[in-house]
Amino acid sequence: MLPIAVDAMGGDRSPGEIVEGAKLAAAAGIPIVLVGPPDLAGRVDIGDLPLITASEVIAMDEDPAGGVRRKKDSTLVRAAEAVRDGTASAMISAGNTGATMASALLRMGRIKGVSRPGIATPIPVLGSTPTILLDCGANAEVQPEWLVQFAQMGSVFSHQRFGVAVPRVGLLSIGEEPYKGDTLRKEAYDLLGEAQGIEFIGNIEGRDLMTDGVDVAVTDGFTGNVVLKTCEGIAEGLFGMVRQEIEAAVVGEVALARLGAALAPALQSVARRIDYTEVGGALLAGVHGSAVIAHGRSDAAAIANAIRAAARFAEQKLPDQLAAAMKPA
Amino acid sequence: MLPIAVDAMGGDRSPGEIVEGAKLAAAAGIPIVLVGPPDLAGRVDIGDLPLITASEVIAMDEDPAGGVRRKKDSTLVRAAEAVRDGTASAMISAGNTGATMASALLRMGRIKGVSRPGIATPIPVLGSTPTILLDCGANAEVQPEWLVQFAQMGSVFSHQRFGVAVPRVGLLSIGEEPYKGDTLRKEAYDLLGEAQGIEFIGNIEGRDLMTDGVDVAVTDGFTGNVVLKTCEGIAEGLFGMVRQEIEAAVVGEVALARLGAALAPALQSVARRIDYTEVGGALLAGVHGSAVIAHGRSDAAAIANAIRAAARFAEQKLPDQLAAAMKPA
Repeated sequence: MLPIAVDAMGGDRSPGEIVEGAKLAAAAGIPIVLVGPPDLAGRVDIGDLPLITASEVIAMDEDPAGGVRRKKDSTLVRAAEAVRDGTASAMISAGNTGATMASALLRMGRIKGVSRPGIATPIPVLGSTPTILLDCGANAEVQPEWLVQFAQMGSVFSHQRFGVAVPRVGLLSIGEEPYKGDTLRKEAYDLLGEAQGIEFIGNIEGRDLMTDGVDVAVTDGFTGNVVLKTCEGIAEGLFGMVRQEIEAAVVGEVALARLGAALAPALQSVARRIDYTEVGGALLAGVHGSAVIAHGRSDAAAIANAIRAAARFAEQKLPDQLAAAMKPA
Repeated sequence: MLPIAVDAMGGDRSPGEIVEGAKLAAAAGIPIVLVGPPDLAGRVDIGDLPLITASEVIAMDEDPAGGVRRKKDSTLVRAAEAVRDGTASAMISAGNTGATMASALLRMGRIKGVSRPGIATPIPVLGSTPTILLDCGANAEVQPEWLVQFAQMGSVFSHQRFGVAVPRVGLLSIGEEPYKGDTLRKEAYDLLGEAQGIEFIGNIEGRDLMTDGVDVAVTDGFTGNVVLKTCEGIAEGLFGMVRQEIEAAVVGEVALARLGAALAPALQSVARRIDYTEVGGALLAGVHGSAVIAHGRSDAAAIANAIRAAARFAEQKLPDQLAAAMKPA
C-alpha cells in the first residue's frame, strides 16, 4: 500500500501529538509519510518516518479558499498533491477543516456526478454499527439533489467501512411524516424516494441518530455541524453531571465518591466510544482520493485512529467505489 | 391567581397521567381547571378539580391548522379561549405541538412587534442557569429579523424565569467567526449586533449550549428542533453506554454491576436533570397569554412541573413583560 500522507502541522496539538500518532500507526504496520516543514525533525522526534517538505502552514482560523490559493507550498496542499500524484494513498489532517476540503477538492478533483463533496462522520451507536451523518459542515447551504448524492455516498461508506449490507437512509427532519420540515426537506423527501440504489426509509429525527434504526442520515452542512458539535457538548455536560451525582451518592455507609477512581475508566471508555475521533475521523466524500478530517483537538491516539481509517479507505479503494456508485446507470 | 387550564386529552399518557399531574399541582396549592370531555370524571378520578368541557380532541398526528379550524370545541381551542377570556391564567398541553401553537396564536393573538411566536425551551446546564433555546420548532423557516425577536423574547424569559440579570445572547452557528454559517446566519449576525436591549455575544456552537457561556441561543425552528431531539437521543444512548461500561467494570474482586442498584438513582437523577420536561416545559413565546408545551411522553410528575412553570409565568405576567420588551422604543 502507498503511504498515508499525514499533515504534521494541523491541529491544536501539532506537531507533537500528530507525529506521535503517526509513529503509533507506523508501528502497527501502516506506511506513513509526514508532510511538514524542512526542520520538522529538529522540532520533534520523527523517528525514521519519511517527510514531504512544505514551507507553509494554513492556520486553523485562516480563510480556507484564500489560504489554499496563496499558500501553494503549505502542508495541506502538498498532502493533497501527494494523493493526486499517486505518491500517497490518502491524506489526513486535524487542521483547518475548510482548507483541508479546499485542498482536496482543488488538487484531487470532484467525482463525476457529485455536485459538492460532503463530510461524512460516523456517529457511535450502542450495540450496533455507527450511523453515518453527512454533510457535517462542508456545505452550509445545499440543494435538494445534493442530499440524494450524500445518501448514495453515505450508503457506500456504511457498506464498505462497517459492512452494512443494505444501509437504511434517513432524511434528518423534525417529524416522521413526509410533510414535516422546511422546503429543502420536502423537496429532498420526494427526490430520495425516487432515487435508485439507496434504501430510503423516510424522515428521521435527532433522537434516532444514536439508535440502530438508521444507517445513513443525510442533512445540510449547517444542521449536520450543529448536531455534531451538540453531541460533543452534551457528552461533556452529561459526564460532568454523572460524576457529580455519583460523588453525591451514598451506598450504605460508603460514599460512592470513593469509587470515583474505579468508575473513571468506565466513564472514559464511554467518552471514547462517543468521541467521533475515536471512530476514526470523518471522510471528505466526493473527491478523487481519500481525505480524512480528524478533530482539531486530536491527541496521538486519535490521530492513529484516523490514520487506521484512512488506511482502510485506501485498501478498499473507497473513492473508486464512490465513483462507481455515482456513475449514472 | 386564576387557574391554569390543563388539556386533559393531550399526550401519550392522557388522560390518566395528565389528570394525576394536575392533582399533584393542585395539592401544592396551584389553582387548576381541567379541559376535557363531559364524561372525563367517568373515565378517570378527577377529584374535586373543576372542568371546562370540550367535546373534541385534536389527535397527536392531526394536521394542526386544519384541526384547530375544524374542531372548534376541542380541548386545545377551549383551553386557549379560557386564557383569552380571562378565566384561566395560562394553558398547558402535552398534545399536538402544532395544534397547541395554532390554538394559542389564533385565540390569544400575537404580541405587537412579534412576527411569529417561537418555542422557547430551557436546556439544563451543570452548575448554572439553563440556556434558553428558541425557536425549537414553531417555524421551520425563519427570516433574519425573527431571530432578533427571538433574542429579545428569550432574554425576557431568561431574566424573569431564571433571574439572569443581563442574559447573553448567542447565535447558534457553525463557527465563532461572524462570516461562518449560511446566508440566514450572516444576515442575522449583523441585525443582532445592531439590536437594542439585548446583550449579543456573537456566534456560538452546539457544544456551548450546555455550558454557562451563553444564556439565550437563537436559531430557526428546524435546527432548534433537531438539536433538542438530538439531546434527548444522545442522553438515552449515553446512559445505555454508561450502564454497560459500569456493568463490565471490576474493582478489585468486586464487579461494579453489584453497585448497579446503588448507581441507578444517580443516573436517574441526571436523566431528570437533562430531561427538558423536568425543567418545566417549553413556552410558546409571542402570544398574548401563557401557553406551555409539555413533552408528549410526559408523566404525572412532568405535567406537575409544567403546571408549576405555567403558574410562574402567570404570576410574573410573562406575556406582559414580553409585550413591553417588544414595544418599539
